[in-house]
Amino acid sequence: MATLSFLLRRGLLGRPVTSHAADEPRMNRWRALPVTSSNALSSLAYAPDEVILTLVAAGTSALALGPAVGWAVVAVMLLIVVSFRAAVAAVPHGGIYHMAGTKLGPRAGVVASAALLLDFVFTAAVSVAAFAHFVAALAPGLTVGSRVLVASAALVGVLLAALRGVRLSRWVLPVLVSVFVALTALLVLAGLWQEGRGLLGAAPTAGWTQEGAGVGGTVGTVATALLALRAFSAGSVLLTGVEVPVSSTRLMARPAVPTVRWVLTVMALTLGALTVGVMHLAQRTGVVVGLELENLRDAAGAEVTPDRAPAPVLAQLADTVYGPGSILSVATIAATALLLLFAAKSAFRSFPALAARVAEDGYLPRQLRVRSDRLVHTWSVLGMGAVALSLVLFFEARTALLVQLYVIGVLLAFTLAQAGMLRLWRRRLVHTPGARARAAVRLRLIITAVAWVVTALAGVVVLVTRFTQGAWVALLAIVLGSLVMGRIRRHYADVDRELAPDPQDDARALPSRVHVVVVVTTLDRPALRALAYARASRPSSLEAVVVDAERAATLEVIDAWERAGLPMSLTVIASPYRDTVAPLVRHVREHRRRSPRDLTMVFIPEYVVRPGWRTLLHNRTATRQTRRLQREPGVMVGSVPWQVHEGQGS
Amino acid sequence: MATLSFLLRRGLLGRPVTSHAADEPRMNRWRALPVTSSNALSSLAYAPDEVILTLVAAGTSALALGPAVGWAVVAVMLLIVVSFRAAVAAVPHGGIYHMAGTKLGPRAGVVASAALLLDFVFTAAVSVAAFAHFVAALAPGLTVGSRVLVASAALVGVLLAALRGVRLSRWVLPVLVSVFVALTALLVLAGLWQEGRGLLGAAPTAGWTQEGAGVGGTVGTVATALLALRAFSAGSVLLTGVEVPVSSTRLMARPAVPTVRWVLTVMALTLGALTVGVMHLAQRTGVVVGLELENLRDAAGAEVTPDRAPAPVLAQLADTVYGPGSILSVATIAATALLLLFAAKSAFRSFPALAARVAEDGYLPRQLRVRSDRLVHTWSVLGMGAVALSLVLFFEARTALLVQLYVIGVLLAFTLAQAGMLRLWRRRLVHTPGARARAAVRLRLIITAVAWVVTALAGVVVLVTRFTQGAWVALLAIVLGSLVMGRIRRHYADVDRELAPDPQDDARALPSRVHVVVVVTTLDRPALRALAYARASRPSSLEAVVVDAERAATLEVIDAWERAGLPMSLTVIASPYRDTVAPLVRHVREHRRRSPRDLTMVFIPEYVVRPGWRTLLHNRTATRQTRRLQREPGVMVGSVPWQVHEGQGS
Repeated sequence: MATLSFLLRRGLLGRPVTSHAADEPRMNRWRALPVTSSNALSSLAYAPDEVILTLVAAGTSALALGPAVGWAVVAVMLLIVVSFRAAVAAVPHGGIYHMAGTKLGPRAGVVASAALLLDFVFTAAVSVAAFAHFVAALAPGLTVGSRVLVASAALVGVLLAALRGVRLSRWVLPVLVSVFVALTALLVLAGLWQEGRGLLGAAPTAGWTQEGAGVGGTVGTVATALLALRAFSAGSVLLTGVEVPVSSTRLMARPAVPTVRWVLTVMALTLGALTVGVMHLAQRTGVVVGLELENLRDAAGAEVTPDRAPAPVLAQLADTVYGPGSILSVATIAATALLLLFAAKSAFRSFPALAARVAEDGYLPRQLRVRSDRLVHTWSVLGMGAVALSLVLFFEARTALLVQLYVIGVLLAFTLAQAGMLRLWRRRLVHTPGARARAAVRLRLIITAVAWVVTALAGVVVLVTRFTQGAWVALLAIVLGSLVMGRIRRHYADVDRELAPDPQDDARALPSRVHVVVVVTTLDRPALRALAYARASRPSSLEAVVVDAERAATLEVIDAWERAGLPMSLTVIASPYRDTVAPLVRHVREHRRRSPRDLTMVFIPEYVVRPGWRTLLHNRTATRQTRRLQREPGVMVGSVPWQVHEGQGS
Repeated sequence: MATLSFLLRRGLLGRPVTSHAADEPRMNRWRALPVTSSNALSSLAYAPDEVILTLVAAGTSALALGPAVGWAVVAVMLLIVVSFRAAVAAVPHGGIYHMAGTKLGPRAGVVASAALLLDFVFTAAVSVAAFAHFVAALAPGLTVGSRVLVASAALVGVLLAALRGVRLSRWVLPVLVSVFVALTALLVLAGLWQEGRGLLGAAPTAGWTQEGAGVGGTVGTVATALLALRAFSAGSVLLTGVEVPVSSTRLMARPAVPTVRWVLTVMALTLGALTVGVMHLAQRTGVVVGLELENLRDAAGAEVTPDRAPAPVLAQLADTVYGPGSILSVATIAATALLLLFAAKSAFRSFPALAARVAEDGYLPRQLRVRSDRLVHTWSVLGMGAVALSLVLFFEARTALLVQLYVIGVLLAFTLAQAGMLRLWRRRLVHTPGARARAAVRLRLIITAVAWVVTALAGVVVLVTRFTQGAWVALLAIVLGSLVMGRIRRHYADVDRELAPDPQDDARALPSRVHVVVVVTTLDRPALRALAYARASRPSSLEAVVVDAERAATLEVIDAWERAGLPMSLTVIASPYRDTVAPLVRHVREHRRRSPRDLTMVFIPEYVVRPGWRTLLHNRTATRQTRRLQREPGVMVGSVPWQVHEGQGS
């Protein structure tokens, strides 16, 4: 049995890796850029869709707001990145958890980490869901059921890769990110060129409408503003992942700060330009995507069959600009799909790393710090994978539904991080001498303050506009998670305080007397061995006991005892209700009451049988006695195992 | 937590009962008759239905075979009872398990007990299903879904009563059985009187037909014989429970043998007379019952809606003879329903009693012998209840489907018992002197031989005619069950042989040297206590070890160790792959290799935290080390618990 599981383990996960392998070479800027920005860049695959499907619900004319919403989201993203750039210089080794925790106090750090951990789970779930969506764009026959299957399979694959701790060769991710950026940039440029020349075609879904949406007509200013806000809140999913370079500072070649700032700048500008371009072209070509297929009507007003379900915005644009099925179009879609897989994989690295750091501070179970023989935080990876998989299955791999829960955590974490930095700069401002230096700090303070206000406002908008659509679930999860983390921390602190050796105590002091109790059920060889071992430990006093739960068995033990001629007496403990545990505990407790300074050690013979299911045929009493006695203060339990089927044993 | 579960337990199951309560007063014949025959009598509630629904599938004209089939089943039942009457005198304390086991060898005993245990499960399932059917006869609006619910609720109720070990006051069962017998006897007599006077009405389902069945016409002799055989095999479910008086011999007042024989006779004659009467009247009034409601057509040829589903035969007769809804009719149906509940309850007593006996012989896990503080074999009751409940749910409480699986076990057990008795009488014949005595034995031999042939033939008929309809499942369950029981027995025998003290061994010999290893993870108070206890046991040699899975933690332990000034050295065990278990095991094994005659004792500090879920935050390493070290020969594991939140503890 053990061998089979061992082979399975080795086959799936590979050979053990020594601890030295953890020391990776640090990344220079050209390597850091693709590695740390893949997460943020991949949101280009679903953020435009969220904006457009929010707008289309208000009618086709609302689609005109798309580019403006795109600009707004990009502006916020740039603000946040500028604020991060400033912060990195001041707090070089801090991710969001660190910033919130050290600047705003541990409670804010806990909330931020809960939000971030939730976000990583959603990154994985959303990425594989979007991956399935892009795969469906290449193979339009895919039903919803198969999309769920594709997304789940992708997630399990990524999970296994994460458990194995797969390290790709150094060039895979850089090449993929470069190809993705090149193809999408080419797409935007080609589209703009076609537009200038008047050659830009119409998207496959141009002219589609959504049932029940206001078609055309004038919309009031307030309604328009509200709609724009809702679209903006949906689009803010673009922000996810922009913090990754900041929290990866430790992995970058020294000097790390300029590298991080450079990566942030290049990433933000690339992502911003691409987003603005994609939103502009999507509006010009008339791309429509919808949440519910049943509500969509095509240009002719007919219902949309599942095989004509709209592809993601990026895929529709590629088909429009390059022509459907053309090599460039297929390449763009495939590169996006692959990048999404890597984004999911990167979430499986970010989550355990953060969980381990939080566990180090005592807010999560300590096991989360433990690395497997493949240097992987197995428990984190498995736990995160399980939750992500349930999300994918529960939401049937529908990106739009998942994003509604996702955004709130992103904005909450960013708001807390900005608030932390705001406090940092305010303190700096007080302590900075010299007008020029103060002016520089003041500028940073202003940028951060604006970023803080904007992220906080965006968060409020999301909460208000999406509360009933799922935001409350995410918020509740974050609040409950934070509370549980606080309790875990308190528990560990209590235990640590209690277990710390008292400097007054003499570590070399010994208990005065040792009283040994041997529990006999039948006088077989394991019992004889337990008796011999107990005597070999030369206790101050020794007694053998038998619990009289079954009269016939007890009489047999007494007979055998007399025949064996053992040099000690046997105590029979009465048990009128046939319970084998409570009377024993009472007996032990009674001795402790009479001689409270004694150390009591109870020896219990145990059969060790293999395979494991055979344990069901034995030991139930021994196990229950052991478990119960361990809860008695001042009592040690010694299990004397006898290996059945291994001959004499010792 | 413990208190809640304690209160729940006490509330549901009641206060503990001392072992003396097991010694019930023995039953005289008037008390034994209702108690031990309720199971057999209750089969009158469903056996006639099985015969009629088998016949009706071959066409309405086949219903004329009903009374003849009834006579045949009753004849077999009487044969078996006569054979049991003879056997009881020769093997006074034997149920079927004992007869098959002692006369045919243990293997036959195992098969017989597997078949009987399965039968008890089916008795419970069939009884509650039939109970729901009778309840539906009183409340015709009951849908199939609610019938499943009623049956499941009844089963759970009976299970709880069994767990509580409910003893009814002495007169409940006698009164109920008397009422049932009186009402059904009155029903039969009144029906016969009405028939003689030409007043007998038609059953509610008279003239109903089954879709697809041959209507009228001549049937070939072979076909008729086959049909009669199939109906007979279905009807043999009447035999269930007739062995109960025999296996209850121990509970009867002395002299037990005459009591058992008297009970057998009265029970068999009553049941036989009632069955013959019911079958006769059912044919005369034209009662029809069907397996599938959809296939039934009423007298007008219309489909039968669920609210007109046919009631059980006994209920239909009561309605026909006494008038629908009359007091006597309702009383008859209600008494039958109640009796079925008691039959289910009696199965919950028979199963654990047999399981405990079989477990005593080592064929089932020994826990099944253990009685709870309510003197109940909890594990048996729960296990049997779970299986019976799954059967009820899986077969949607449809009695007819359950009976198809039930009959095979009944006939198999009876055949084995008759075979055992056959062998007994053949031996007796050889050893009996005197012509008269030999003639008496020869008569018994002939009766038993006939009973054996008939039950064996009936078994073959059931196997052949019902094989694909479920008999194969029951047979497979019995075969697999017997195999598993054989393996359990072999395992226990092996273990017992190995564990028996060798008379050559000196029980007073002591191991030469004791080597103690203390596992330190952090040098906290639990670790210091473990060290103190280890030293207090005055071992021949003592070492403290730390597994170097995490460098920082190891260095901390070494530092603390030096500061504590403990009078022994600390061994650091290398663990390049961060495993905390395998390197420790290797270290211990290495010592054993060098000094194979030493006893090694490993002390592991453990935190005891409450409530239990907090254990998730601690001890994972200690638990894994303990479990793994217990499998090492010659190694004892001592757990040194520290009660967190209880102050100093010892």
